Amino acid sequence: MSLGLVTVHGDETESQCAYSDVMARWQPDAQSRLENAALELFAERGFEAVSAAEIAARAGLSKATFFRHFPDKPEVLFWGRDLLADTFRQAIADGAPDASPLELVRAAVLAVAPVFDADRHHHAATRQRLIASSPTLHERAVLKRAALAQAITDALQARGVTGGTAELAGLGGAAAFDAAYERWAASRTYRGFAAFARRELDRTVHAAASLS
Amino acid sequence: MSLGLVTVHGDETESQCAYSDVMARWQPDAQSRLENAALELFAERGFEAVSAAEIAARAGLSKATFFRHFPDKPEVLFWGRDLLADTFRQAIADGAPDASPLELVRAAVLAVAPVFDADRHHHAATRQRLIASSPTLHERAVLKRAALAQAITDALQARGVTGGTAELAGLGGAAAFDAAYERWAASRTYRGFAAFARRELDRTVHAAASLS
Repeated sequence: MSLGLVTVHGDETESQCAYSDVMARWQPDAQSRLENAALELFAERGFEAVSAAEIAARAGLSKATFFRHFPDKPEVLFWGRDLLADTFRQAIADGAPDASPLELVRAAVLAVAPVFDADRHHHAATRQRLIASSPTLHERAVLKRAALAQAITDALQARGVTGGTAELAGLGGAAAFDAAYERWAASRTYRGFAAFARRELDRTVHAAASLS
Repeated sequence: MSLGLVTVHGDETESQCAYSDVMARWQPDAQSRLENAALELFAERGFEAVSAAEIAARAGLSKATFFRHFPDKPEVLFWGRDLLADTFRQAIADGAPDASPLELVRAAVLAVAPVFDADRHHHAATRQRLIASSPTLHERAVLKRAALAQAITDALQARGVTGGTAELAGLGGAAAFDAAYERWAASRTYRGFAAFARRELDRTVHAAASLS
């Protein structure tokens, strides 16, 4: 994690300020214990073959505890997306008054960089392989990306960005985040998320300019 | 239908050329009979309370026929999206050599205008209400929009548009199409789809220009 953190501190003031808040909500707890147990079991036996009760048992928790945290089995790999959406919303609300929509999206995506530490990186490639191999998990990933896009769009609209522009920025921001996450997860040695995010955000800015 | 058609013929050459091909694949058949039966039954009793067998019976077909056409019950309201994706792909492949990504997206969305005739308009508002009222149908709509966006992106990439630009154009195009469909469906009297599509496409062009 320190590598990503140092990079973020170097040139992203928003991320630096939000660091302790963001991380406090991402500490290991029942949800991440259940996620880690699920990743181990799914990797061993495949997503379909493992029950919620078995995930709970591997994590040393009850099946009832599992369903207190997650509405269904796929959700055990996606709980972090709700926290991402909250972090995006907060970063956009806190952005500079004169920032453009894409500058606000940049601040939002970079604000979540501290979350993607070496611990999360350890499981990220397994998680991506599972999502690619399971239609159920792939569908859930598509729905979660749409929810992230909507969170960005809503936060931009709350700052007065008009509907169409806010929607396109939300769609582009969520796509850039997902592309950065995918490349970060595919990296064999751990490197900070911020550099991946910056590259994809730069591509999005370039894409917007070359549409018409 | 003729109203939409006349508008399209007026100033969209691509749509005019594609008209007979597009419509031939959208003629009433088992799929649209099943869709109409499903819309009637869902409107009477709600999406959850109606079985695939009941939809088939209302359409004068067997349950086996239903499942030869659709993998599951929600899909009965979304089969047209696969034809839309094909039509988008073809229009983009046939677009002018020097067209910009957003000009190709415009040609694609306007190419489907003839499909949205008075017959389809008759059920469109009911369809939208059902989707809004059912989490299952809403999820399916989000997944179908993602598939439409991907179809546009793939078709643009096949013409040499680079990845990030093609993806943003696909996301923006699918969003514009959905917004146009929603407003068209909400219109109390039937009007041609092309005018709704043009308004949303203009908004997308404006949105792209005002992102940065």
